Formats: sequence, structure tokens, C-alpha cells
Amino acid sequence: MGPMSAGLRIDASPEQLAAVKYDANGLVPAIVQAHDTRQILMMAWMNAETLQLTFAEGRTVFWSRSRREVWRKGDTSGEVQHVREAYYDCDGDTLLFVVDQDGAGACHTGAYSCFFRSFGPVPVGDAP
Amino acid sequence: MGPMSAGLRIDASPEQLAAVKYDANGLVPAIVQAHDTRQILMMAWMNAETLQLTFAEGRTVFWSRSRREVWRKGDTSGEVQHVREAYYDCDGDTLLFVVDQDGAGACHTGAYSCFFRSFGPVPVGDAP
Repeated sequence: MGPMSAGLRIDASPEQLAAVKYDANGLVPAIVQAHDTRQILMMAWMNAETLQLTFAEGRTVFWSRSRREVWRKGDTSGEVQHVREAYYDCDGDTLLFVVDQDGAGACHTGAYSCFFRSFGPVPVGDAP
Repeated sequence: MGPMSAGLRIDASPEQLAAVKYDANGLVPAIVQAHDTRQILMMAWMNAETLQLTFAEGRTVFWSRSRREVWRKGDTSGEVQHVREAYYDCDGDTLLFVVDQDGAGACHTGAYSCFFRSFGPVPVGDAP
């Protein structure tokens, strides 16, 4: 999807918001999956504020644990993630966002997915 | 895939194992994705021991944070997850397992995926 694709603004109900369980640091893990390829792009963390920003802006907004600040994914890289679907799991402690990914991919390394390294023997000639 | 499908035993290299970063509780989140449908089934946690068990047995083995014990997924439910691919992310703090899921699904509720609830208005007639 191009950079102009609009993300879905979500009006979550109070019951849905109350179902989300944050850890001792006030964070919840958020898995991000590409809508078109169904590949897992990344996992990052949200707090209650950045979850609300994600819903309000229709794009993923995380909490950067290393920088300790709100992280609007793509603001510096251009790799914005436009929300198409948003889910919470059975016990409310993990979120899943299905997105249209702008740019080359989600990873700060330039890779399409952050999960570009597999465990086990690397076949001869396999790209890193 | 049927219950007899064999999972992949993985011989992870010392460098790969050293790249995995555990949190202050000695845990790392592990996303589980179905190989056939590419749907996200669940997320759970592993420690160094259950990651090694997963590699050795070719099926997902987690650390149950609530029960504080090794959790061989499917031992009581029959919903074993046979590993086909295993990845670690760019900063080594999240794992991804692509699996063949036995049984009806991954969720203790009986649902196929633990992410069966979406945020936002529920369409009339939508199944819970």
C-alpha cells in the first residue's frame, strides 16, 4: 500500500479497553502482521496512552522502552503502519494489529520483517 | 495437519542461542503462527530451558507464568504445535514459531486463535 493509504480509526468500547491487561510496567505487547502477505512484521510495546493514540490516528503508536518515549512508528523512517484490524487475545495481555506497511518494511535494519533470522543450520548461499 | 505430523528438531548454533535476550524474569515472548493459514494463534513465554525443549522435541514448550511450570503445549488438550520454522527478531527479544497446529486450535477457550476478539464496533450478527 502506498503512503497515502488511510488507517482505520477505531472506536473501542469501554469493555474492550477494560479487557486489556498491562504488565507491571504498564505495557502490553503488540504483534504487527502485514495484511497483504500475512507475515509477522514486528512486535513492540504499547501503554494505555499509545494504544489510544493508535486507535485515534489509525496508525501504530508504540512506547519505546529504550528511549522511554512515545514512538509514532514511521515518523522518522516513513515506514508508517496503517491499521486495518485490531485484536486482543483471550486473556487480554497481548494485542494484534493487522496493517498496511508503508515503505520497504518494518525493521530498522531495512528488512521487511524484524524476524529475518531463523534458528538452525543456514543453507549454503542463503541470504542473511 | 494431523496429530502424527512430526515437528522439526532444530540444532540452533551457539551464536543463535546467544542472540536471544531474556527479560528480568528470564523470559522471552514467543509468537505462534499457523503454517497453513498464516494466522496468529497465540503468544506465550519461554525461558532458556523451554526454548531448548522446543528445539529438542520439535513442538512448542512454554513457561507458564501463572502456574510457574514447564508447559508442554497440548499435553492435556491434545493441541500440540509441531514446529516447522523458528525465528528471532532483530534485537533478539522476541521469537516466532511457525507451526502445524493439532486439534481444533490453539486457544484454551476452544477457539482456533487466541485473538478472536477485535476492537471496535461489533457488526450485527457477528459471532463472539
